[in-house]
Amino acid sequence: MNDVHQLLFAHRSIRKYTDQAVDKELLRTLVQAGQAAATSSFLQGATVIRVRDPERRERIATLAGNQVHVRTAPEFLVLCADLKRPGSCCEQYNKPFAGDFTEHFIIATVDVALMAQNMVVAAEAAGLGVCYIGGIRNNPREISDLLKLPRGVYPVFGLCLGYPAQDPEVKPRLPLDVVLKEECYSDEGDAQRIAEYDEVVREYYRTRTGGGHGICWSEQVAGLLSEKSRPHMRQFLADQGFTMK
Amino acid sequence: MNDVHQLLFAHRSIRKYTDQAVDKELLRTLVQAGQAAATSSFLQGATVIRVRDPERRERIATLAGNQVHVRTAPEFLVLCADLKRPGSCCEQYNKPFAGDFTEHFIIATVDVALMAQNMVVAAEAAGLGVCYIGGIRNNPREISDLLKLPRGVYPVFGLCLGYPAQDPEVKPRLPLDVVLKEECYSDEGDAQRIAEYDEVVREYYRTRTGGGHGICWSEQVAGLLSEKSRPHMRQFLADQGFTMK
Repeated sequence: MNDVHQLLFAHRSIRKYTDQAVDKELLRTLVQAGQAAATSSFLQGATVIRVRDPERRERIATLAGNQVHVRTAPEFLVLCADLKRPGSCCEQYNKPFAGDFTEHFIIATVDVALMAQNMVVAAEAAGLGVCYIGGIRNNPREISDLLKLPRGVYPVFGLCLGYPAQDPEVKPRLPLDVVLKEECYSDEGDAQRIAEYDEVVREYYRTRTGGGHGICWSEQVAGLLSEKSRPHMRQFLADQGFTMK
Repeated sequence: MNDVHQLLFAHRSIRKYTDQAVDKELLRTLVQAGQAAATSSFLQGATVIRVRDPERRERIATLAGNQVHVRTAPEFLVLCADLKRPGSCCEQYNKPFAGDFTEHFIIATVDVALMAQNMVVAAEAAGLGVCYIGGIRNNPREISDLLKLPRGVYPVFGLCLGYPAQDPEVKPRLPLDVVLKEECYSDEGDAQRIAEYDEVVREYYRTRTGGGHGICWSEQVAGLLSEKSRPHMRQFLADQGFTMK
């Protein structure tokens, strides 16, 4: 395992930060490192919005489920899937815009995620800690209005950045053989592997700083998938032009 | 800029590989590095399928738009969004499965992309070259049948890996100020920035190894967004259980 591998394996979300500001040039380098990631069909369908205004931050923190680190992080970015920018090129070339297929939604969403992960790796390589904020999809309409997102653009997630003022443990992941399959999909043997993993997760939650609920992975995801999740998303996306034909 | 930043900035797709095999342990490390990425709500909604069988590879290469590197790459992986694995935990806890919302589709798709990008960074850090294969969405039904993907799982993209036997230029990206905005979305000044960038891209295509078509970014993405793109995706996803409520 080389240094970069060690860096990747050391990832954990950081939600408490020192007062140290993130150098503006460093921030710009991080976003450029994000841009260097692969982009489907060269679309470059991502826009990053840096939010510094304390009131706007406070409002987003509340809308994202009262996540205090959205307010306190030295830097907070909203990563948006953007089909407006490439779409406006259709006008320029007198072509009809047809970018409202499910496929376009996938392309733009994946573009944003690849970009974000490069930014995260670049940030952690510079000593920063990060935390993804999926909670901005709790109230995507209000967030979009706050950020003046036009039709064709939607906020995929937020990203908090800052120098870590905490040192949490790395969260254990599923056993590799559950996730990596040879030739075909198969879940043979996975029940036992997951049962063992569940005990590891239970122990992680029991012992981590601040204590925890001690539930296991299976129970946690069963809870997640047995309830409606952000049922407003479909209509919100349609309103933003992502009709997913 | 540190070493990791330089690594990220040096990314370009590699489609020609030497005969050197990818060590099995290295491959496993790469997938584990992928698993180390953030995962929304701890879902871990990704499964990686390693395809080695030459006939299956040949078939996938054809289905993905006759991409010869899918056949010739020392390693070829299909990265799948997987709600079946966590979904089966609902049964275990006697909860109803409700994981068919648009939000679940986003969570799983983003999970796959974050994981993949970590794998790509880890691979490039080990001297490998990679190429994402979005073309597997050309014929997702046939690919899913070949890989025996059950309901709740869909192939997001493929990934070719191998030691580079080519050294293509890095493809120029949009100017940073087009992509990074302060406080709110705005495209003020972008028309001029993009016009200048278009000339850079035109030059890149004109001069790159093997010659090129010499079109610019705006023209390329106008073409992409003015035509139907994989219009089968919506129905395919619904058939796989991603109904996007």
